[in-house]
Amino acid sequence: MKEKKIILGHGSGGRLSRELIEEIISPHLGNRELFGLNDGALLHIEENDLAFTTDSYIIDPVFFPGGDIGKLAVAGTVNDLLMVGATPKFISLSFIIEEGFSIVDLEKILVSIKKTAEAADVKIATGDTKILPRGKGDKIFINTSGIGLRITKQPLTPERVKEGDKIIVTGTLGDHSAAVMIAREGLSVNSNILSDCAELTTPLLDLFKQGYNIKCMRDPTRGGLAAVLTEIICGTEYNAKIDEREIPVRDDVLAVCEVLGLDPLYMANEGKAVIIAEAAEADKITSFLKNFPVSAEASVIGEIEKGDKQKGKVILMTVTGGERLVVLPHTEQLPRIC
Amino acid sequence: MKEKKIILGHGSGGRLSRELIEEIISPHLGNRELFGLNDGALLHIEENDLAFTTDSYIIDPVFFPGGDIGKLAVAGTVNDLLMVGATPKFISLSFIIEEGFSIVDLEKILVSIKKTAEAADVKIATGDTKILPRGKGDKIFINTSGIGLRITKQPLTPERVKEGDKIIVTGTLGDHSAAVMIAREGLSVNSNILSDCAELTTPLLDLFKQGYNIKCMRDPTRGGLAAVLTEIICGTEYNAKIDEREIPVRDDVLAVCEVLGLDPLYMANEGKAVIIAEAAEADKITSFLKNFPVSAEASVIGEIEKGDKQKGKVILMTVTGGERLVVLPHTEQLPRIC
Repeated sequence: MKEKKIILGHGSGGRLSRELIEEIISPHLGNRELFGLNDGALLHIEENDLAFTTDSYIIDPVFFPGGDIGKLAVAGTVNDLLMVGATPKFISLSFIIEEGFSIVDLEKILVSIKKTAEAADVKIATGDTKILPRGKGDKIFINTSGIGLRITKQPLTPERVKEGDKIIVTGTLGDHSAAVMIAREGLSVNSNILSDCAELTTPLLDLFKQGYNIKCMRDPTRGGLAAVLTEIICGTEYNAKIDEREIPVRDDVLAVCEVLGLDPLYMANEGKAVIIAEAAEADKITSFLKNFPVSAEASVIGEIEKGDKQKGKVILMTVTGGERLVVLPHTEQLPRIC
Repeated sequence: MKEKKIILGHGSGGRLSRELIEEIISPHLGNRELFGLNDGALLHIEENDLAFTTDSYIIDPVFFPGGDIGKLAVAGTVNDLLMVGATPKFISLSFIIEEGFSIVDLEKILVSIKKTAEAADVKIATGDTKILPRGKGDKIFINTSGIGLRITKQPLTPERVKEGDKIIVTGTLGDHSAAVMIAREGLSVNSNILSDCAELTTPLLDLFKQGYNIKCMRDPTRGGLAAVLTEIICGTEYNAKIDEREIPVRDDVLAVCEVLGLDPLYMANEGKAVIIAEAAEADKITSFLKNFPVSAEASVIGEIEKGDKQKGKVILMTVTGGERLVVLPHTEQLPRIC
């Protein structure tokens, strides 16, 4: 890594993030996958496979259309447990609050944490609160770690992805980034764009119970669909080919993207999953997901192909019929998105 | 709570912390003990009692005599699992780093994390990294959450504390606070005071295996011995009576305390435990602990008495033979101590 100091891009979920993790963090800790591929770890304790995950939330602004940092922190950690095929059971909650932060705002956040935890049926098991002197932090940061119990028969992991598997997204892309961008920049866009921030417990636990052959699942947060597919396919003998015409994006989100020069493929989502599943079951999975409001716009957007000249790549078939390589973004379009 | 905004004292481990937790956080989350009494939660998952704990570390300075934020974060979470009678198994690691932080310093911290995790025999299972724009954070904050497996026959909890039980500390008090204070303020004190920052896995797991009747255990971090004993005894029909002559404090720490007007009873420790145990076994426990370098100065410092006029109080028998009430500090002597 050529940088001597941390730069914003190291938090992007893009190529710089990967460099920091692969070249600095992982070598020291001796655990290559630690900060990388997996949303959560699967741990075998006595007779159980437990899922364990952690995330710190530093989003700016703390309140945004469609959610707040509290909802985001609980939903994000719950979703990370779901992504490894686990029923979310317990979460921890650790606050780092800047001196001067409004107690009324803290209470709003707490209300939202409680509501989200109840909806996801997770118990807040343990907590911590630290206070920073004014100017040494920014309002409030929240860490949520989570424990779940694996319920899928097989672990959900990129190793199980094979040629012919279909790629599904559970709904429209880019809503979260667009909503946060509008709120942060105070853009006077005439839109009703809300963040998609949501916990996906109900549809995904119900989906697991159906017993479909789901290979792998990821929530496309920082770095978006592009980062998630790159992580899954990178280093394999396959390519992930997605069809731009099938990728659901709201018209108003697309309009914001055009104004701001953003690409929905790279934009963060906070209530969506990318599912890789056996081809024969992809349509059934999509139909099943459409029964739930948070995944009503689920669709099959592509498939896993055998690589030829190129391997381990994400390829986009554009609306105009061309093909282009989707590369991991070097840095983040939008810092502090989660 | 009369404050409308967060103040530094809300992070002190003292009375203001308690108010924030009891009057704001707990009522919203509907879980009174969440941020309070217990270092970790005991969770029953299938056939196992799991321990789960979380802590964010915001210490300033990041490097201090005797340790750094990495060692502190791992040791602190490992110790929290031990305090509830659990073998530490897995920890998560979440970094919030300020843009501009030195990669060399990050690597020093990673080395220290690895070393401490190995010594404590915990696996780093999952991680996360977020970057803050310059000026929106302060160098580096680390959250570590931990999972352990209970090994004590009975849970370690204040409810089991009874009249006659003895109070033990595993070593000298105040070393961490004194070392951090000297480092932070650049005091030209001619001393070799090091933070006691250490994981206690070896002595405590060995102690658990002896099968002594330990009732309750706490690590006296923020708020020190005073806060820990207050939390254990508060609301019970007992008092915790401690003898100033028996409380181990290094001479040079005492000297720093006198210069700076600090009281070792309230000072944070990062490698010590307070143990409440059945009277008949207290001396055996203390002798056992003396076999280990990190607990070589373990001693019985007091006992649990039946309350009379006063109940639920911490009482100090002073060197001069008098008695004084030890009250929970209103605020912290030293912010950002952990």
